[in-house]
Amino acid sequence: MTRIVLATRNAGKIVELERILDGIAVAGLAAFPDAPEVPETEPTFEGNALLKARAIAAHTGLPAVADDSGLCVDALNGMPGVLSARWSGRFGDATGDKDATGDKDAANLRLVLDQLADVRDGLRGAAFVCAAALVVPANGDRSAVEHTVEGRMRGAIVREPRGTGGFGYDPVFLPDGETRTTAEMAPEEKDAISHRGKAFRALAGLLPDALAAAGRL
Amino acid sequence: MTRIVLATRNAGKIVELERILDGIAVAGLAAFPDAPEVPETEPTFEGNALLKARAIAAHTGLPAVADDSGLCVDALNGMPGVLSARWSGRFGDATGDKDATGDKDAANLRLVLDQLADVRDGLRGAAFVCAAALVVPANGDRSAVEHTVEGRMRGAIVREPRGTGGFGYDPVFLPDGETRTTAEMAPEEKDAISHRGKAFRALAGLLPDALAAAGRL
Repeated sequence: MTRIVLATRNAGKIVELERILDGIAVAGLAAFPDAPEVPETEPTFEGNALLKARAIAAHTGLPAVADDSGLCVDALNGMPGVLSARWSGRFGDATGDKDATGDKDAANLRLVLDQLADVRDGLRGAAFVCAAALVVPANGDRSAVEHTVEGRMRGAIVREPRGTGGFGYDPVFLPDGETRTTAEMAPEEKDAISHRGKAFRALAGLLPDALAAAGRL
Repeated sequence: MTRIVLATRNAGKIVELERILDGIAVAGLAAFPDAPEVPETEPTFEGNALLKARAIAAHTGLPAVADDSGLCVDALNGMPGVLSARWSGRFGDATGDKDATGDKDAANLRLVLDQLADVRDGLRGAAFVCAAALVVPANGDRSAVEHTVEGRMRGAIVREPRGTGGFGYDPVFLPDGETRTTAEMAPEEKDAISHRGKAFRALAGLLPDALAAAGRL
């Protein structure tokens, strides 16, 4: 059975990717306690995802998937973007760990709401964006293979947080055509329309060819 | 003698504009205690400057000049931009009063430094941008005249505040080709290269024709 590594310590993400990559075993970073911490220092989601996938593929010798995602607000010219996890700046870590404490999430979310306080309805559009990278290390005489894909979910920023699901900016994000924020949806509902779900499914479509090209199938 | 109104309560700005508009008397809002407070609700500097100049021209019946300016940071996709005066969101006023307390300035500046903490030298470029608007009300059978101009000063964001002059983000802004931040310069030195100085001088060049076209000369 083919085995790949997903560069995350979030069990929910692992289960989600395993469900999408039917028949492929997905290991998380918990299985590789010596895996390097990779700071998200690139100016793009793609750059950060690739940085992480390359580091984990190099460390494990296995095909690696990594993602980087964030909220891009129209009225903030696409920011917080790659700075989504450290937007309020008060926590100052460079690892961009989106699974950390709710205090950080709450401070980031509150800052975005404050920054948009005077922005009219109709100008509050935003997108959740996820870049996912796949790095398959070289095997024998085959070359390494790298792919990046992007998934988007368009919506708008509401004026007050709603819902307790999800994490990060979910309580203030209303997807287009929905009446509930992503924090008010069941996880499977959110996966079906989410930026990360779209990116992972796009990557799943590329995986068989990538594994074959690198001599891993 | 021609008289115009500058939509500000900042005496320093009035003196600066009067020096540039040689031979034209400039009044500030202090001379018009009933002048309306105009919230800066537009998504562009030009929009906000025009909003203010139109309101003051309508209120006073005199030619009016207004400006809106801010810091546009490359790594923040041009933000804080029109939100420069309320970037840290903790003071929540919509008037964008750049002359308010240093606490607000310090909080905004600290947030930008924190957001750029992981941004490498060479990617820390920024510009101070000023839009200035001139609105000359109609006179007799002449039409009203409106002009907007933009002035820019390019530079970079340093890692720690330096200097005590200026206001807002001056202590962290290093103009291209300079070794001092704009907070380390004398006011006249800063005027000579600043975004606001450039915008006011551009507007000064348009003023005689605008006054003549509106039947005010």
